[in-house]
Amino acid sequence: MAESQSHPYAPADLKLEGYVPVVLPQSTIIGIYFGVSIFVVSLIWIFSGRFPKITKVDRLLMCWWVFTALTHSILEGYFTFSPEFYKDKTAFYLAEVWKEYSKGDSRYAGRDAAIVAVEGITSVLEGPASLLAMYAIATRKSYSHILQIAISLGQLYGAFVYFITAFLDGDKFAASTFYYYSYFVGANSPWIVIPTLITIRSWKKICAAMEAFQGQNKTKTR
Amino acid sequence: MAESQSHPYAPADLKLEGYVPVVLPQSTIIGIYFGVSIFVVSLIWIFSGRFPKITKVDRLLMCWWVFTALTHSILEGYFTFSPEFYKDKTAFYLAEVWKEYSKGDSRYAGRDAAIVAVEGITSVLEGPASLLAMYAIATRKSYSHILQIAISLGQLYGAFVYFITAFLDGDKFAASTFYYYSYFVGANSPWIVIPTLITIRSWKKICAAMEAFQGQNKTKTR
Repeated sequence: MAESQSHPYAPADLKLEGYVPVVLPQSTIIGIYFGVSIFVVSLIWIFSGRFPKITKVDRLLMCWWVFTALTHSILEGYFTFSPEFYKDKTAFYLAEVWKEYSKGDSRYAGRDAAIVAVEGITSVLEGPASLLAMYAIATRKSYSHILQIAISLGQLYGAFVYFITAFLDGDKFAASTFYYYSYFVGANSPWIVIPTLITIRSWKKICAAMEAFQGQNKTKTR
Repeated sequence: MAESQSHPYAPADLKLEGYVPVVLPQSTIIGIYFGVSIFVVSLIWIFSGRFPKITKVDRLLMCWWVFTALTHSILEGYFTFSPEFYKDKTAFYLAEVWKEYSKGDSRYAGRDAAIVAVEGITSVLEGPASLLAMYAIATRKSYSHILQIAISLGQLYGAFVYFITAFLDGDKFAASTFYYYSYFVGANSPWIVIPTLITIRSWKKICAAMEAFQGQNKTKTR
């Protein structure tokens, strides 16, 4: 019956039996994430330039899709299937990420059902689909735009559920104002802004094609 | 300090201060829902026949979109904005619907955050969008298929969150096996089956148009 290690998360009455404190410094955790991401994105940028007739926008989109695929599949995938990450004693990087991020949203350490459901859908379905989107752009597949919209809307739906449930449950899961704005708000914002932009762009492309297709088939009534 | 009215929901330790029992018989509640739905769907079926060159599949889809629009906006819209429906003393139909449905999933009466988030997105965004989808089919808009996919994927995402959170939280919210299968599973199944079919159909239509459009613009590499 050892005294439970106290944790740095909010609310203070959150029970985390067997919690082991984060070991790596914040700068190391974030540095590795950005470092690996920049390395992979650079590879994709260089590699994508070899495809014929590919635009810079498409190359940027390939970079986004590989970045978001890795985040979904590896980071969020680890969280989805590791309910006891906060007990990790080995300073394993992915456990450290979620121990650190839980300062911005303790529902991760607390294993809130809405969080696990959204992260499960994101990591299992949207992660692999994002890799497919990168491939579809490179090889000019006819499903490229509709796939990009499907994943982007899924990311937006997930973000909506994420923020709405936080507010409904009292918006009390950040350890401080700093973590609230940097982790809870800041780290999630790209997954609202970028999917919105991609959805608008691909929506217009599809509408233009449908318009031309309908005209070509002379099925349009006027 | 009146003794709280006991409720018929599971789990028994759910606290519902001020609960007023359902008054209308189950057959009346379901009968009104089906009666109104069949009436509206019949109107749309007849009315849609007057559009030129419209296929029977498109007319059926218009019926589906109006049915799901009304369910989302009225039934689910009422739930979203009526946190105290279980205290209603007037036998108001929409309150009766959710008092009855809570026998299959008490998270509705209990105001579970994931449920409210999904129902909020469904009623506020997907309800009006479904009406727009009906209009888009009738008037052959170029965004018809992409809009149908967007709403259908939203319905599927909502259903995933709905079922996954129930299981993660112990799958203990139905008052009996009957209510579990008829309400929790049965009443939600159409919103898995039909959106899946619509997504597949519209996905194929969009891909065919993109294929033709790419060929026509001679941008395809092979």
